[in-house]
Amino acid sequence: MKNLYAMKKHLKSLFLFDIGHTNAKYWNNETKTSIPIQNFTPEMWNSEKIFYINVNKLFEKKLHSLENWIDLSDKFSINTEYKTLGVDRKVVIFGFINRIIVDLGSAITVDIIKNKKHVGGYILLGKSSVISSFESKIPHLSFEKNNSLKSFETPQKSEDAMYYGFFHQLLYFLRSLQSKFSLEITLTGGDSAEFHKIFNSVNIEQNLIFKNMIKIIESNKTLI
Amino acid sequence: MKNLYAMKKHLKSLFLFDIGHTNAKYWNNETKTSIPIQNFTPEMWNSEKIFYINVNKLFEKKLHSLENWIDLSDKFSINTEYKTLGVDRKVVIFGFINRIIVDLGSAITVDIIKNKKHVGGYILLGKSSVISSFESKIPHLSFEKNNSLKSFETPQKSEDAMYYGFFHQLLYFLRSLQSKFSLEITLTGGDSAEFHKIFNSVNIEQNLIFKNMIKIIESNKTLI
Repeated sequence: MKNLYAMKKHLKSLFLFDIGHTNAKYWNNETKTSIPIQNFTPEMWNSEKIFYINVNKLFEKKLHSLENWIDLSDKFSINTEYKTLGVDRKVVIFGFINRIIVDLGSAITVDIIKNKKHVGGYILLGKSSVISSFESKIPHLSFEKNNSLKSFETPQKSEDAMYYGFFHQLLYFLRSLQSKFSLEITLTGGDSAEFHKIFNSVNIEQNLIFKNMIKIIESNKTLI
Repeated sequence: MKNLYAMKKHLKSLFLFDIGHTNAKYWNNETKTSIPIQNFTPEMWNSEKIFYINVNKLFEKKLHSLENWIDLSDKFSINTEYKTLGVDRKVVIFGFINRIIVDLGSAITVDIIKNKKHVGGYILLGKSSVISSFESKIPHLSFEKNNSLKSFETPQKSEDAMYYGFFHQLLYFLRSLQSKFSLEITLTGGDSAEFHKIFNSVNIEQNLIFKNMIKIIESNKTLI
């Protein structure tokens, strides 16, 4: 790459993939697209170079066999003692010095970074998993946003009790971690916009994973 | 019943049933027994009188048709504006003046009683539901108590991140409610003993539902 402008243009045209257990999401031209995992066929993508991260063991072998798919997982490192920290979590915390990163996907991951070190984290069920679990147990009740509740009122019916149970529990938990570690919070992931309406005193960066993948590519000059 | 001693003895010999979506639990001779719901056949129980509460719509008709099964749901009332408050939740909060009652079953219900009035509540997924949801999504990770974590340390591996994610999130949420409403907490239900090891500053009454069913029977002299 000769100059910054050409590089920025080139990065925009790249395909970046984040492959999970429920969806494969890709970023191209500043737009995110989500493919249900059962419809994802990596060999059909014949762009010259596709940068990806993958936590889904079913696709590991296939992706490593394809020359145009470039795994970013070994192109950066994180200071942590956490065993089995998924590469998606490593990417969302990349570059932060002091922060709690909350990624609200089909699972919710909470990662705490203090003085450039990842000091630990949590894995919680995400909203879609909670809904489907409630549906299978209590089919006559629906978990739905009702809008009837003013902020921090206590629910007065079962639909609100489930909906705000999920979001208030997460909110009070994160507030406690925030004050315990004296850190700012950044929300990301598919359900972050909905949660941000309730917890609007914190930061939100919906496409943090792709922004950080670009940062990782930029910091590895050999990649582009 | 002629005297208190005879009544106490009689109450001890009674069968009390709490019928849910996952199990039917009964209390007899100060012992609790749990029957998986698919094995529960009310017509097989021919004791003279069985007092019960039931939230499972599949058994409603059958139970009402059996003369020896006596529904306690219309034998007491609770001061609340909450719509669709399940009878099991009404029973566990019966008699409390100021308290947060947390019932840790296959769902977790949190009910807040202030000055004899039920002011609202929450419904969360219980531990068994969270485990089975994680197992279906991330089969290579097991949600298990590891014992390696000292109190309030931040998890350093995924098994701990899921286990303590579930329990720490609940704990911080309840602490926040506790300080918001200035109320004591009582834990009950199947997972309360395990949770009490982490949250041991609060009360625990594992068989609160049956104790309160007995209180309801005692307060209705016509029943015995």
